[in-house]
Amino acid sequence: MKKIRAAVVGYGNIGRFTLEALAAAPDFECVGVVRRNPSDRADIPAEIPVVGSISDLKDVDVAILATPTREVEKHACEILSMGINTVDSFDIHGLIPELRKNLSAVAKEHNAVSVISAGWDPGSDSVVRTLMEAIAPKGLTYTNFGPGMSMGHTVCVKSKEGVKDALSMTIPVGTGIHRRMVYVELLPGYDIESVAAAVKADPYFSSDETHVMAVDSVDALKDMGHGVNLVRKGVSGKTQNQLFEFDMKINNPALTGQVLVCCARASFRMQPGCYTMIEIPVVNLLPGDADYWVSKLV
Amino acid sequence: MKKIRAAVVGYGNIGRFTLEALAAAPDFECVGVVRRNPSDRADIPAEIPVVGSISDLKDVDVAILATPTREVEKHACEILSMGINTVDSFDIHGLIPELRKNLSAVAKEHNAVSVISAGWDPGSDSVVRTLMEAIAPKGLTYTNFGPGMSMGHTVCVKSKEGVKDALSMTIPVGTGIHRRMVYVELLPGYDIESVAAAVKADPYFSSDETHVMAVDSVDALKDMGHGVNLVRKGVSGKTQNQLFEFDMKINNPALTGQVLVCCARASFRMQPGCYTMIEIPVVNLLPGDADYWVSKLV
Repeated sequence: MKKIRAAVVGYGNIGRFTLEALAAAPDFECVGVVRRNPSDRADIPAEIPVVGSISDLKDVDVAILATPTREVEKHACEILSMGINTVDSFDIHGLIPELRKNLSAVAKEHNAVSVISAGWDPGSDSVVRTLMEAIAPKGLTYTNFGPGMSMGHTVCVKSKEGVKDALSMTIPVGTGIHRRMVYVELLPGYDIESVAAAVKADPYFSSDETHVMAVDSVDALKDMGHGVNLVRKGVSGKTQNQLFEFDMKINNPALTGQVLVCCARASFRMQPGCYTMIEIPVVNLLPGDADYWVSKLV
Repeated sequence: MKKIRAAVVGYGNIGRFTLEALAAAPDFECVGVVRRNPSDRADIPAEIPVVGSISDLKDVDVAILATPTREVEKHACEILSMGINTVDSFDIHGLIPELRKNLSAVAKEHNAVSVISAGWDPGSDSVVRTLMEAIAPKGLTYTNFGPGMSMGHTVCVKSKEGVKDALSMTIPVGTGIHRRMVYVELLPGYDIESVAAAVKADPYFSSDETHVMAVDSVDALKDMGHGVNLVRKGVSGKTQNQLFEFDMKINNPALTGQVLVCCARASFRMQPGCYTMIEIPVVNLLPGDADYWVSKLV
């Protein structure tokens, strides 16, 4: 069987775990990593070429974009224009419809497929939310995140005066409400009270219950575990009180890397255009024949 | 907007709740119920025609089969041959691949679409199982049913000598293992010990932990609630211990009726052929434009 030739664009946490998911997949080979500075191989396995541009790699079938979210559209447009499929985990919920529209035009023009927002939220959670909405069309869904590190909130705390390092944890307290637990390593001469006041006044934190505390080492507290609890209580037909819950506790970048690889695979089973995960049959995420999975999973 | 014209074939519990789901759906109208004896209107709302054959109804777009599982293939073949889409909740897991193959040929020949095994298990659970398998490709999934009434086991108990009425409840005890709690209303002159022995010796029960007890009224114990707990512990890429869980507590026929209506809708968005739910994008289960749901649910 000819394997799908995938390139990974960007090499941070997501890129690292995407390489692992590609290595574990029976139907993929990784043809290279694309980095701004290709002489920095970091911990990339020796057998994988590291290049500065995707044009330096031969016969790429799909590019997995492990770049910062804000750079996704630029890279995707460029790569789709070469007739190469792209997959990304673009995660700014409000901007997804626009990205989908823009990339759809480029993809169709160049006979390629783009799968966007392929992570866990947006991503696999979106599939579960959509299924729940369909099978109980009236009702409320709550997405509860955590416990886990919030990148955006952490970056915000780090920007405050007197902060050497920081970690903002998201703690779910139900019905989509979250508590923020903020751990700060102070620079010499600063006190935690003034930092706490600055954090709590920031729009990132001002509407949530926020606790700020000083610690000796932020690094000692970091783990990449995260979680989600999705709940829906709704109505099927005219029957009230249908109860659904999806819960997961996962390594965050490992799950994102795996979902990216699943969607890279699915991209070859879609017509030219741009898709989110709710527009893709779930069986297309798996390797091999649908017939096999129908007999095993339905 | 032109509404989808649906007929319901069969009128037991599933048929009753399917009518409710059709009435609650913004994009459907129910054009009639097809029953063996159309003069028996049961509790079918007065405005809905009851007929003896689907040919007696005009311009049917889709037939929702709420017949016993064993009669699904016969009805589906007949109706697909008229160029009308069909949906069913065929639930004998081992026979699904064969049904899919047979109906696919008929559907393609007559330019129609059939969606099979559209209930909750098989059905919406299958979508969740497939998603979990994709995003953590190595590992174990357990499907735990209940607490809820098992139709098959109940029928088995009712067939035993001395039993006036019976109810077999399925109780999940984890890792896909189930306890059977059997409630029996005895005929005069029979004792519970001999009935219990007969039940426990039956292949339906012999490999499960089974408790049999006499009650005054089986009818007083019946409710149509059911539940599922789907768990997977697996590996994403090379990262172990990814934990996923899907849990629901639902009215059984109400959920089946709703899923049937969702899949009836989705049938108009598929190419001619026969599909299980894992082969259908989840967004197709919802009314209206994908664009809207992408902005709301992704």
